[in-house]
Amino acid sequence: MIKQERAARTREALVRAAAEVFAEQGFVTASIAAISRRAGVSAGGLHFHFENKAALALAVEDRAAEALRCVTVGGGGRAGGGSLQVLVDSSHALMALLAGDVVVRAGFELSAESALARESGVDLRRQWRLWVEDVLRAAAREGSLADGVSPQDAARAVVAATVGLQVLGAVDRDWVLPPTLTRFWALLLPRLAASGTLGELVAEGTGAGDESRTLCRGVISD
Amino acid sequence: MIKQERAARTREALVRAAAEVFAEQGFVTASIAAISRRAGVSAGGLHFHFENKAALALAVEDRAAEALRCVTVGGGGRAGGGSLQVLVDSSHALMALLAGDVVVRAGFELSAESALARESGVDLRRQWRLWVEDVLRAAAREGSLADGVSPQDAARAVVAATVGLQVLGAVDRDWVLPPTLTRFWALLLPRLAASGTLGELVAEGTGAGDESRTLCRGVISD
Repeated sequence: MIKQERAARTREALVRAAAEVFAEQGFVTASIAAISRRAGVSAGGLHFHFENKAALALAVEDRAAEALRCVTVGGGGRAGGGSLQVLVDSSHALMALLAGDVVVRAGFELSAESALARESGVDLRRQWRLWVEDVLRAAAREGSLADGVSPQDAARAVVAATVGLQVLGAVDRDWVLPPTLTRFWALLLPRLAASGTLGELVAEGTGAGDESRTLCRGVISD
Repeated sequence: MIKQERAARTREALVRAAAEVFAEQGFVTASIAAISRRAGVSAGGLHFHFENKAALALAVEDRAAEALRCVTVGGGGRAGGGSLQVLVDSSHALMALLAGDVVVRAGFELSAESALARESGVDLRRQWRLWVEDVLRAAAREGSLADGVSPQDAARAVVAATVGLQVLGAVDRDWVLPPTLTRFWALLLPRLAASGTLGELVAEGTGAGDESRTLCRGVISD
């Protein structure tokens, strides 16, 4: 039992170290040796858990996918204010994870690279896009989307902006901090929300995001 | 004279081949040998023009920076409909270059990588952001921005979305095709434009973008 716990801790340390090294150097440049050194694990210990660098990358991507599922499901279950508020809250939760958790951040970057190279892997941006589309279609069904706004067009704009914030945030952290996303929603919500529902919406999130974020951090790595 | 022309053509072929190889393989993986092979130029010929891979990357970035200047200056001089239309037209011209010109596309990617690594180089996304901010401040001064919309917040949203479209377009080309950007502007302009000016604005661009795009393509590589 203690042996199993130790193995789980070692695996955890390797995934985190891999995420750090990938985030700093990129997948191509990162070496297995740098990852085992960072984790304080021997080369043999690393190979007991992971066959190669690609297996480590996949583990990091899987963690990020888990975080994305947690943030989107968690948000859906809790927020008041209808589907638009669910979207706002989950986007805040996702950005907070991207800003604060290197495993999630590296997972999204690796996922984008592997989608580019058409390799196997998890396409996290696609997962995010499909979820945003679902939520905006739900908003349209419940009558909280403004007349004449297509859920699909709104989804494309939200996905493009959130992916952009994430990419820009890799160079300048301001882009992924809460005030930036809050101002984005304060700009966009008056266009998206049906008349009469705007007053109910909170651009900075309702705190439902905070709860699920804490929950999701527990699921992941902190 | 003929010798100079030949040298210019060789340099041109090298920059284009470098852009293609960087776009396909990334800067780190790309080899000098692959670039000279692609350009049909000997290793000696390559080194006559470029000291190393970093010098080639910088040449590609410089071309992209030239294209960005061309698109933004060109748009500014021509479009009717005020500053918001200038922004719409230039964004279409930029996306068309990103979709159609591998040198511009690779230049933006290299620029993002070098900004990440804090190396020397041209920060094209920053250049784009500063220009978008200028145009939106001009829109506010001329009274064509809606009451209560901050130029800075609008600029952040536009920059995040356009960078996101570009990044998503590297995997799925639909994101950088004109209809996607047109739908983005059709969604956002009713929120950005002062009442009474929306009717003058053309989300798909006025064609001023097309003119400057053709001009800019000439400046660059086609």
